[in-house]
Amino acid sequence: MNPNDLLTASPWRLAERAAAMNPSAIREILKVTERPGILNFAGGLPAPETFPVEAMRAACAAVLGEGSAVARPSLQYAASEGLPELRAWVAAELGRQGARVAPEQVLITTGSQQGLDLVAKVLIDRDAPVLVETPTYLGALQAFAPMQPRIEDVASDDAGVLPEALRTQLGDMREPPRFMYLLPNFQNPTGRTMPEARREAVLALCRERGVPLVEDNPYGELWFDQPPPAPLLARWPEGVVYLGSFSKILAPGLRLGYVVAPPALYPKLLQAKQAADLHTPGFNQRVVLEVIRDGFLERHVPTIRARYRLQRDAMMAALQEHMAGMDVSWTQPMGGMFVWLRLPQELDAQDLLPRAVEAGMAFVPGAPFHAQAPQRNVLRLSFVTQTPGQIDRGMAMLARVLRQASSPPRS
Amino acid sequence: MNPNDLLTASPWRLAERAAAMNPSAIREILKVTERPGILNFAGGLPAPETFPVEAMRAACAAVLGEGSAVARPSLQYAASEGLPELRAWVAAELGRQGARVAPEQVLITTGSQQGLDLVAKVLIDRDAPVLVETPTYLGALQAFAPMQPRIEDVASDDAGVLPEALRTQLGDMREPPRFMYLLPNFQNPTGRTMPEARREAVLALCRERGVPLVEDNPYGELWFDQPPPAPLLARWPEGVVYLGSFSKILAPGLRLGYVVAPPALYPKLLQAKQAADLHTPGFNQRVVLEVIRDGFLERHVPTIRARYRLQRDAMMAALQEHMAGMDVSWTQPMGGMFVWLRLPQELDAQDLLPRAVEAGMAFVPGAPFHAQAPQRNVLRLSFVTQTPGQIDRGMAMLARVLRQASSPPRS
Repeated sequence: MNPNDLLTASPWRLAERAAAMNPSAIREILKVTERPGILNFAGGLPAPETFPVEAMRAACAAVLGEGSAVARPSLQYAASEGLPELRAWVAAELGRQGARVAPEQVLITTGSQQGLDLVAKVLIDRDAPVLVETPTYLGALQAFAPMQPRIEDVASDDAGVLPEALRTQLGDMREPPRFMYLLPNFQNPTGRTMPEARREAVLALCRERGVPLVEDNPYGELWFDQPPPAPLLARWPEGVVYLGSFSKILAPGLRLGYVVAPPALYPKLLQAKQAADLHTPGFNQRVVLEVIRDGFLERHVPTIRARYRLQRDAMMAALQEHMAGMDVSWTQPMGGMFVWLRLPQELDAQDLLPRAVEAGMAFVPGAPFHAQAPQRNVLRLSFVTQTPGQIDRGMAMLARVLRQASSPPRS
Repeated sequence: MNPNDLLTASPWRLAERAAAMNPSAIREILKVTERPGILNFAGGLPAPETFPVEAMRAACAAVLGEGSAVARPSLQYAASEGLPELRAWVAAELGRQGARVAPEQVLITTGSQQGLDLVAKVLIDRDAPVLVETPTYLGALQAFAPMQPRIEDVASDDAGVLPEALRTQLGDMREPPRFMYLLPNFQNPTGRTMPEARREAVLALCRERGVPLVEDNPYGELWFDQPPPAPLLARWPEGVVYLGSFSKILAPGLRLGYVVAPPALYPKLLQAKQAADLHTPGFNQRVVLEVIRDGFLERHVPTIRARYRLQRDAMMAALQEHMAGMDVSWTQPMGGMFVWLRLPQELDAQDLLPRAVEAGMAFVPGAPFHAQAPQRNVLRLSFVTQTPGQIDRGMAMLARVLRQASSPPRS
């Protein structure tokens, strides 16, 4: 019996919102790619070689060490807001990026995914409109879905949402959107970054029209050549909720992120947080504070940047070489983990995936990253989990698959 | 300006459900009790002396040690279901308690509070009825509130909900309840336990009427004389969602709990979990597995039981002595952390709290633990955070306050 048949025969009745919840399309797709020996560009995982195991080990030993004054407090129930020293660290860090934030505006979350869940609970009514980029982060769509919004794509190019398209769309909406969700730096899935001028244009329009923003910035520190422009938060403090994360600069298995909210919204997000899991593990907060307190990230993050930059360079070179002469284009990521490929219009990346896996490599089809009409001739590649040599071989495989798919079938 | 004025002047608009979210009444109350030197019986925190700091330190060192094969995997993104070995451990543990559970039915959560949040998302529609005990765990009321149920108390005595009252209430309901939420062992806030006969009677009625159950069991292992009767889960596997936790037997700062769900419900709870925080910190799961794998809990939990039993005995003796001759009664907790006092009908525990704090001790008034009509002449005392001597002094203080409040005012 499948779960639905079981449900009919059970005393349980699902909430209506449960119908809006779905297994991650990507998760299902990725099952195809779990084949030993495959060159996998499909995942969204940071390279495990970058995890600071030694620093973590030392921090755990310090927090739990004999005579440590913080051992038992780190294992006890704690404040829903988060560890005060960690909140202060986040505020100071954002200050260096030009955003004036008080520690009282920082809410520590169980990964930045939880920030999306809290935002959805506090801001989304059923059928309320929410705007997202085209394409957008799949995890955000999943976090918003249980609150049953009406999600609308905003037309976007390689610099993010298009201000003129946004203006027209806002004019056509019967109800103002609750917020627009943006991932301005090295976006998942496209790798694109909103340049300074685009940030200013989009922000001016949103301020004018009273459309608040949810700014998601998990990848901002992973820049390769120069830091990205200042966050949107720095430009409109009362109109932006900002989500940050330690997942890409330390390790995702700690599930440590944060929300920065204007004082008007903070109390409700805090109440939602308290109801959701009381607080983020205090032990993890204390250990991460111990890792980062002496400027560790200033030494550590450049090593991640250097590693990923080499891989990005290898990816760009491999695409240049192997896709030569084909109707294929791709983004030029200035940081982060991903590149986005546009295939000839007639190709469907999802149809191609089994052939790519057959050939020895895997990617993620781009359709699931769209809230509305999905583009089908697009795909996402992660460049951070394969070596430059593997990247070259993988792109050669992909190019062969694309050539075979593009050539007219022999009859 | 208060947050509401700020909101009016901001671009943000709250979801309707945000009005149903409120700061924890207890949290506000507890601020009164945060006075240095006070004998505090108000908190709901386990005794920090019971946290296994050394075992945690050794486990962290093992997980992150040189040559450890699990160091980097424990820091990477992980499956939303939880660590397979930990899920198997939970299933085996419940098997020992008489519940046949497959590891595939176990979902690791970020504390059992998250289990309540997931249950609410998947099962509660706006205005749908949900039944709870009188009184009930406040954190459950908070977790359910954002999904806007209509929560109804079921009349209860010192053995839990009253089957006949439940039968009448079910007969009067226009719509069947989505579930009844029960905390059968050493309940928070009352300390009461459902005896075998009551479990059977309530369960028979719920099966007959098709009312599924959410069974919350954070305290079950903390029994003093003999283990509590088998969980409801063991009696009606397809009709019970079971919530467990490592907070009271290891440490709450790890935020590690679990949900056991019938196969019909599991996929939706998993989707809700994935959207909520992707997964519970893999590092914490791995460390706890390392702590418990060699039977550590069989040695450790008895030390907590012994400690809390002494404190329970001291509390019972102190109440017996100091409340003698007064119209005050209390529960006889057979485990857990709490005792529940009933004061003379005309007294309001919340009014008395400032006087108690003045006298040097603190408790939690019982009114916030009621979903509907609150009883006001009740209060909760935790017996696990003060020594037997302090318990004696604290109860003497409380008795003096009650005597003063009960005596007719002098004119």
